[in-house]
Amino acid sequence: MMDQLIEKIKQTQNPTVVGLDPRLSFIPTFLKEECYAQLGKTPQAAAEAFYRFNCAIIDAVYDLVPAVKPQVAMYEMLGSAGIESYIRTIQYAKQKGLIVIGDVKRGDIASTAENYSDGHIGRVAVEEERFEIYKEDFITVNPYLGYDSIEPYFANVSTYNKGLFVLVKTSNPHSGQLQNLDVGGHTLYEHVGQLVETWGEPYRGKYGYSDIGAVVGATHPQEAKKLRQEMPHTFFLVPGYGAQGGTAEDLAVCFDKDGLGAIVNSSRGIIAAHQKEPYRSAFPEKEFALAAREAVLAMKTDLRRCI
Amino acid sequence: MMDQLIEKIKQTQNPTVVGLDPRLSFIPTFLKEECYAQLGKTPQAAAEAFYRFNCAIIDAVYDLVPAVKPQVAMYEMLGSAGIESYIRTIQYAKQKGLIVIGDVKRGDIASTAENYSDGHIGRVAVEEERFEIYKEDFITVNPYLGYDSIEPYFANVSTYNKGLFVLVKTSNPHSGQLQNLDVGGHTLYEHVGQLVETWGEPYRGKYGYSDIGAVVGATHPQEAKKLRQEMPHTFFLVPGYGAQGGTAEDLAVCFDKDGLGAIVNSSRGIIAAHQKEPYRSAFPEKEFALAAREAVLAMKTDLRRCI
Repeated sequence: MMDQLIEKIKQTQNPTVVGLDPRLSFIPTFLKEECYAQLGKTPQAAAEAFYRFNCAIIDAVYDLVPAVKPQVAMYEMLGSAGIESYIRTIQYAKQKGLIVIGDVKRGDIASTAENYSDGHIGRVAVEEERFEIYKEDFITVNPYLGYDSIEPYFANVSTYNKGLFVLVKTSNPHSGQLQNLDVGGHTLYEHVGQLVETWGEPYRGKYGYSDIGAVVGATHPQEAKKLRQEMPHTFFLVPGYGAQGGTAEDLAVCFDKDGLGAIVNSSRGIIAAHQKEPYRSAFPEKEFALAAREAVLAMKTDLRRCI
Repeated sequence: MMDQLIEKIKQTQNPTVVGLDPRLSFIPTFLKEECYAQLGKTPQAAAEAFYRFNCAIIDAVYDLVPAVKPQVAMYEMLGSAGIESYIRTIQYAKQKGLIVIGDVKRGDIASTAENYSDGHIGRVAVEEERFEIYKEDFITVNPYLGYDSIEPYFANVSTYNKGLFVLVKTSNPHSGQLQNLDVGGHTLYEHVGQLVETWGEPYRGKYGYSDIGAVVGATHPQEAKKLRQEMPHTFFLVPGYGAQGGTAEDLAVCFDKDGLGAIVNSSRGIIAAHQKEPYRSAFPEKEFALAAREAVLAMKTDLRRCI
């Protein structure tokens, strides 16, 4: 699946992934009111509002970006209606030709990881029937439990042409508390990076990158630069651009000499663009998704200036 | 909430938590067939079978144990119907007076962790309304992202009398790959253990234990013994007993001199007891839950022999 992601990036000339992390505070009042009128002020209404909001964003950006990345927490928070909204969002994005990265950050012992793997990127067996449940193309996973917590995803990666992004160096302020500890001449995140590079070896595609990628935050440019050198076959999913403080200059180091090797996430910078200038003045509330489109174009220009 | 867990352990004289990790292969044919007849061989039927199976197990053990621990992966795998089954299972267990530990192992940046926190152990706001969604008493969380990924749970721990178990040393075969790395004279898991002990300080209850507990696997007795000394105010959730190879002798070190300080999980050893001798011969399939009850009593005897 990494080959397909790279081809979509080449085709759109835009290494941007739109983070579909909806919050009620991002959603225009008219859209929320429609859902409340139908379903009351309930989690079900919030989940429906998330879905409609996402569809409008997807409609406005699907020709400009290769991928979207829904963050499951926002949906999971709403219970089963939220999970339904997450699944419908994935389905809609895929219908529009987008690659979907499910930001689930799961990590558990092998027998449990198999369940996450089958549910998200594989098939779930109910007797002789097989069901595709979530249908993400990629998911993010957490490495704290070690190899046997990651290995259960590999069979589905191969069988169903899927991919992973393993957390290596995250974008949050305290990411260094464990990840930057010295584990014998290098940091824990470099150690994890080396493991991911090795784990990914059997899954390399025609561009030299493995289906097993890594999450490397844009907020740590020196660290990302070193990781880019140490992990030449590992594609990076780069969070932290924009609202979290990472700039295009910061994350340029995540790319290889061909301008490949990374995809940069922006969530609220795009999906909540209509709430901020210059977009707020330029677009009436009903056209919030056009603000997202403009924000994607601005991000594309900003990224291409630096890579 | 740790005080309540300790009181339930004292009352039942049994530091056992029953892992509600259903698999279709554990569920008696008659029960699955009932659900397939109603809903077809579908994820919905599997989710319903999980719920009915869990209810029967809960009915058979609720007077013997302080708590149950559903593993969300088995439910999440089935999509929204699975999440509904997870939520109904929690509700049923709480109606029976059991404490519920949601084994979700979430870990994400602060703004996202807030969503997990509100959904699982807090309240979710939809305009001026507040909803309790999952209603676990405790959840498990992953520390790889550092303090700011854990801190968002603390407000709900205080406000709603809840608790956490932070992964410190897990029970799986490769847990040492990262967790046992030397980070300057001690292991990464010991470092995490120290952090958890410190983070938990403001949340200590009348028995001296904090609402912020730790996951410490039964499969590493020497390591657990040292952690027990280094984390005197941190209650342990101990996986790995039984099917994963941990014995009562192994995990005795997780307890303090008063026989408190830990709760031991068993999942398939209890809920799938009816499939194994001596229970398989002793109970007809319809009475599978009585096998679970016998297995709980046997585990209680085994644990109390050693602590």
